[in-house]
Amino acid sequence: MRILGIDPGLATVGIGLIETDSANSPQALDWCTITTKPGMSLAERLGEIHKDLRAYIQEARPERAVVEKLFFGANKKTALDVAQARGVILLALEEAKIETLEPTPLELKSAVTGDGTADKKQIQQMVQMMCKLDETPKPDDAADALALALYGSFVGEMVMIA
Amino acid sequence: MRILGIDPGLATVGIGLIETDSANSPQALDWCTITTKPGMSLAERLGEIHKDLRAYIQEARPERAVVEKLFFGANKKTALDVAQARGVILLALEEAKIETLEPTPLELKSAVTGDGTADKKQIQQMVQMMCKLDETPKPDDAADALALALYGSFVGEMVMIA
Repeated sequence: MRILGIDPGLATVGIGLIETDSANSPQALDWCTITTKPGMSLAERLGEIHKDLRAYIQEARPERAVVEKLFFGANKKTALDVAQARGVILLALEEAKIETLEPTPLELKSAVTGDGTADKKQIQQMVQMMCKLDETPKPDDAADALALALYGSFVGEMVMIA
Repeated sequence: MRILGIDPGLATVGIGLIETDSANSPQALDWCTITTKPGMSLAERLGEIHKDLRAYIQEARPERAVVEKLFFGANKKTALDVAQARGVILLALEEAKIETLEPTPLELKSAVTGDGTADKKQIQQMVQMMCKLDETPKPDDAADALALALYGSFVGEMVMIA
């Protein structure tokens, strides 16, 4: 199964694409970011994210997507920007009719590392190990997106076991 | 000039359409709401709002739009839902290449009533008076959207005076 992980943001959207099958360890096919410039209007930036993500989905043809659920951090203004970007991300997935999972940060960390309080570095090391990569995937947003994609593969396994 | 006011929300999006010219008082052409059901997934609801708003824009052909800027109220979860809906609203306007103004609640209230602390009722009465309506427009979200559209007409006047 091909799974797309997306780490939402307005300036940077993390993208991670993996392929899984029951016999082999998950394969990281691609990781990258969609970026928008602060000089553009909010509407233009949302348009850019939506357009670029649609094009990526069309080429990558994922069967499942995983987009982290929002929670409130320290910066409320940033949270609203991320939420508006997340709106157009979910829209692009809905338009492409892709099944979408929305784990909380706690669910993501627990599933990927077995520890709900894991930090970014622990998650990245686990992603590197599980996908058998030579190095930690960079940048952080792309690594987080790969972790989200891996979450999507666990859910499939859990369903199969049950 | 035809101006579309939009009051963002996930369950209810307020829509208000006015026509202005320099000689006459603004005319309220239409006011209504786009609604989505709680039983649907977030992505489906965002898809519905985007689709319905695109159809409305195509028919109404506004030259300018006004979408209230978000601020944090008491309920943080609701704010994130509204922000995600606002993302797909701004996207629909961007796709239709409509000039969009984003006043803060304070800017809206000051412009429409002359009082930045005005309550919903004062705003609705002012909308009724300015558009020469027999009754206060209902529901609240649609009345707020008409107020936003009126804000868009003031900005035009201010530019003309300057």
